[in-house]
Amino acid sequence: MHFKDKLAAIQKEKKSLLCIGLDPEIEKLPPAIGQRKDAIYVFCREIINATAAFAAAYKINFAFFERFGAEGWQTMEKIAGEIPAGCLSIADAKRGDIGNSAKHYAEAIFGRLGFDAVTANPYMGKDSAEPFLDWKDRAVFFLGLTSNPGAIDFQFFQQNGQPLYAAVAQHVEQWNSTHDNCGLVVGATKSEKLRQIRQIAPGLTFLIPGVGAQGGTVATVLQNIGDSNALISASRSIIYSGSNDDFAEAAAAEARRLQAAMQPFIAC
Amino acid sequence: MHFKDKLAAIQKEKKSLLCIGLDPEIEKLPPAIGQRKDAIYVFCREIINATAAFAAAYKINFAFFERFGAEGWQTMEKIAGEIPAGCLSIADAKRGDIGNSAKHYAEAIFGRLGFDAVTANPYMGKDSAEPFLDWKDRAVFFLGLTSNPGAIDFQFFQQNGQPLYAAVAQHVEQWNSTHDNCGLVVGATKSEKLRQIRQIAPGLTFLIPGVGAQGGTVATVLQNIGDSNALISASRSIIYSGSNDDFAEAAAAEARRLQAAMQPFIAC
Repeated sequence: MHFKDKLAAIQKEKKSLLCIGLDPEIEKLPPAIGQRKDAIYVFCREIINATAAFAAAYKINFAFFERFGAEGWQTMEKIAGEIPAGCLSIADAKRGDIGNSAKHYAEAIFGRLGFDAVTANPYMGKDSAEPFLDWKDRAVFFLGLTSNPGAIDFQFFQQNGQPLYAAVAQHVEQWNSTHDNCGLVVGATKSEKLRQIRQIAPGLTFLIPGVGAQGGTVATVLQNIGDSNALISASRSIIYSGSNDDFAEAAAAEARRLQAAMQPFIAC
Repeated sequence: MHFKDKLAAIQKEKKSLLCIGLDPEIEKLPPAIGQRKDAIYVFCREIINATAAFAAAYKINFAFFERFGAEGWQTMEKIAGEIPAGCLSIADAKRGDIGNSAKHYAEAIFGRLGFDAVTANPYMGKDSAEPFLDWKDRAVFFLGLTSNPGAIDFQFFQQNGQPLYAAVAQHVEQWNSTHDNCGLVVGATKSEKLRQIRQIAPGLTFLIPGVGAQGGTVATVLQNIGDSNALISASRSIIYSGSNDDFAEAAAAEARRLQAAMQPFIAC
């Protein structure tokens, strides 16, 4: 099934746009499981099981696994296998390389690991994107406007009054015309820009990280986008919501709270 | 030892700026070893052993290993261990993410895998670069101007007449002022731009891929840079120079040929 159809079906069923970011740090795990050899796997599995009813997607951040080398990749493969069919899986890998290398990265993420989507860096342009886009039932979220302070360095570079992030949005909207399988990463902290970017790129699914504990942010984000072709991502505020044996219940409560904030914005 | 000191010592000893790219594709390996279960490891080890006298560095392209998942990472770790102390090791991983994720990527590549250098994507700006740069005896090669057709999409975006790739060079030159451990990736096919970029970024080590079978290119590249603070990378033209049992000798001959073309440009 095409990514967008899958997303629409999930949104309809769960009334959720919530993407839960799995960024597990061994140092932050609850003491009850932090000592186990397979602590990261167990932690993520429990989080997934407890929150799946409220989540439209899970996003696995590759950095947190690669720090453990091949062993970390093994854990990541196991966790990817735990994401239920009723949720989308996103490889937060931010890859970007020329054609032949991109082909292998796509094969790794979509073929071998079976993810529904990936995050990618647009800097090298269209031919670095195409090998990912050729997997037409999957989706590729290109970095557009990120929420970190360093976004100012290059993303606001301006040509004839148009910032680079807007040019990226414009190009990706064109790339989307082939298989309708492109998305854009836009930080929630830049919510005043969301409306502008949505006008430039009406067809792209937005992946919006940076929604934290603040109650109002989800509403602000969705009002600015004006539609529900999006996933809103939260990581630490959910997975570290509890710090003891109740970590899974606490994560579920926070996921439910965010899902409830999204519900009014999802078309029936 | 600091990356630049190591590079200078190697250049002095070997009269080489040659970086050999390890992009092994199982489909292209010589029949004699292509059937073995550990074919990719054996192939890379034999290439390294045969060419080490002419190589200043080896560059491992992560995409070609990640296509095999955790198993590919295991192979990559083993191959990284085969790179001799007299050569630099570069992780061609093109990573780029926000602070905490970047910290883990740096830990993976410099800490766990022990690479001397990494390639990174500048799109997310300075705070995505810093966790790598904090490893002050290692080096980070940021994508500047790449040699693929898609480079035109964003790298030539212009603000007041300055293209984005030049702005990246300018920023990275500033980032370099802290630990003198920054480099820039500039494609050899853009050799007319090398002179311009060297003027903007006199302190950066250039990593120059795209030197193929063409005899003159090495000379053109080095004349345009005007110094030897660089590594010139070739991959397929070396590792697939022979296609039979003589693959290692053929690779050595091609590596020696490129090294000989570089020798006149290296200061005594």
